[in-house]
Amino acid sequence: MNTTPFTSEDEFLEAIHARFPNEHPHLALGRGDDCALLKCPETVALTTDLFVEHVHFRRSYFSPADVGHKALAVNLSDLAAMGCLPLGFSLGLAGPPDTPRVFWEGVLDGMAALAARFDIPLAGGDLNAAGAVMLAVTAWGRPGPTGRALQRCMCKPQDVLFLAGDAGLARVGLEVLERFGPDAARDWPEATAAHLRPAPLVKDGLALAKLRTRGLMDLSDGLARDLPRFLGRDLGADLSIDPDILHPEVLAWAKATEQDPAALAVLGGEDYALLGACHRAQFLEIYGHVPSVWAVGEASARPGLRVNGKPQDAKGFDHFG
Amino acid sequence: MNTTPFTSEDEFLEAIHARFPNEHPHLALGRGDDCALLKCPETVALTTDLFVEHVHFRRSYFSPADVGHKALAVNLSDLAAMGCLPLGFSLGLAGPPDTPRVFWEGVLDGMAALAARFDIPLAGGDLNAAGAVMLAVTAWGRPGPTGRALQRCMCKPQDVLFLAGDAGLARVGLEVLERFGPDAARDWPEATAAHLRPAPLVKDGLALAKLRTRGLMDLSDGLARDLPRFLGRDLGADLSIDPDILHPEVLAWAKATEQDPAALAVLGGEDYALLGACHRAQFLEIYGHVPSVWAVGEASARPGLRVNGKPQDAKGFDHFG
Repeated sequence: MNTTPFTSEDEFLEAIHARFPNEHPHLALGRGDDCALLKCPETVALTTDLFVEHVHFRRSYFSPADVGHKALAVNLSDLAAMGCLPLGFSLGLAGPPDTPRVFWEGVLDGMAALAARFDIPLAGGDLNAAGAVMLAVTAWGRPGPTGRALQRCMCKPQDVLFLAGDAGLARVGLEVLERFGPDAARDWPEATAAHLRPAPLVKDGLALAKLRTRGLMDLSDGLARDLPRFLGRDLGADLSIDPDILHPEVLAWAKATEQDPAALAVLGGEDYALLGACHRAQFLEIYGHVPSVWAVGEASARPGLRVNGKPQDAKGFDHFG
Repeated sequence: MNTTPFTSEDEFLEAIHARFPNEHPHLALGRGDDCALLKCPETVALTTDLFVEHVHFRRSYFSPADVGHKALAVNLSDLAAMGCLPLGFSLGLAGPPDTPRVFWEGVLDGMAALAARFDIPLAGGDLNAAGAVMLAVTAWGRPGPTGRALQRCMCKPQDVLFLAGDAGLARVGLEVLERFGPDAARDWPEATAAHLRPAPLVKDGLALAKLRTRGLMDLSDGLARDLPRFLGRDLGADLSIDPDILHPEVLAWAKATEQDPAALAVLGGEDYALLGACHRAQFLEIYGHVPSVWAVGEASARPGLRVNGKPQDAKGFDHFG
């Protein structure tokens, strides 16, 4: 790999301008001034997520394009989890000044490809030196045609709890990448892709906002940690995770490592699946419109989390735990 | 200092909730969900700035409250530089998990005090482990009553160039803090304050947007670097920096270190003064309404930058230079 770094901020900015269009119907004024000027709807959904080297990714098995993709994708997933359509984003970039230029170009390429897929402009940002590579993305969007944004803590006892997307697959991807490095992609193509390049489920989020979904969030820290946040203070849940319904690569890895596949599904983070709830009479209609959803259990007036009848004590990941 | 760290993300979040109100007329939905929901005007100005330990601040002479203040202030300064009023902000926080809790509490206190001064809510954010302390702030606002946002690259040859705020003072603050540590505040109270706790000139920015100001930006990297960005591709400038008009602490430090005070004023960064331009016939009216402004020279059809008649070659700070 060519190890030449950028020699000035201006050179870095040119690499950004070459990849991200600076004119867009949402922008009254694009990058290059003290602020961007956005043309906004009455209600704007906004989210911020950091993506930090050694914490969220390693350069040993993330390609530069994976880094750029995932830093933006986790933010778009938050918009999807409100049932919102992305409108734009800003990017704070930091890294060692001797970071190779081709690394940054790859990061920008991966991010630009995902931005183009959703037709959203990069409205502004900030470049900085730092000890490790770090991307700070803020993304914003608008509710879909119904005007409804889907929140947490909206479900009621006996509601069906469902997921759109996989549970545990990204965790398997992380484990095989940590163990085998980038070669893991050969035998575990979908698990590694789920970890390296999660797909923000914007289309599913918008569809669920049109239906009688009672609430929605995205799974970043795993069901065990995120479900209590979704249920709120007063509710618990009974999950029924039939191993047969899990992704084949989750089952194969659980078998190879003698782990409980249901535990992988419940504890594994970073799936960016959508977790929703609805009245039990509505589930089939929702399933009819969003065929990627699958029921994982039901909300309960009894506090605590039970998985296949057993209390779930272990928690997912905590940055300060 | 008590060195106990936070023991969980939830504890950290409680420290945030205790300091930042989560209800505000601008928020349809505050912190705690996947996204915040903002009630927005038609035009929103938005900016992002990172604030990184070892790059922008040292814990040896920044108090925790200084860190929190400055991370937000530099973003509000960008809004001031568009003539906009702040509406809200989001915060991505990262740091070593063993960072003392009292450090974070001080950071939050300093930030909350500045946010309260402008009555703006913290709408959301993200907590992460990282090798060094890092704050990623995104702030947004709206144009004032005239609806006009002030941009760069708007001035014409012979326009008066003016500043609201000091030039070189924050640079003196940085130099004395690097040399003498926190004790420097005793002999250099205004220079150290300018570096540690810059005041975002929101009121001046709003006032200038009402007057016939031709363009505005804030000085983060120093006049030598920022002026070409302000002038745009085709213009140059002739600056007349009369040392007598500079801050007494700039003059005293220049004398003590045998530096040219005008060079300190031109090369020094992080003043967060506002740099504006107007037709020469308008300057007195502007001065009448915003008495903190002072003329620093005039725009010229002749490219390049001249300071007191001599070409200015040295540039300010470049993160990737």
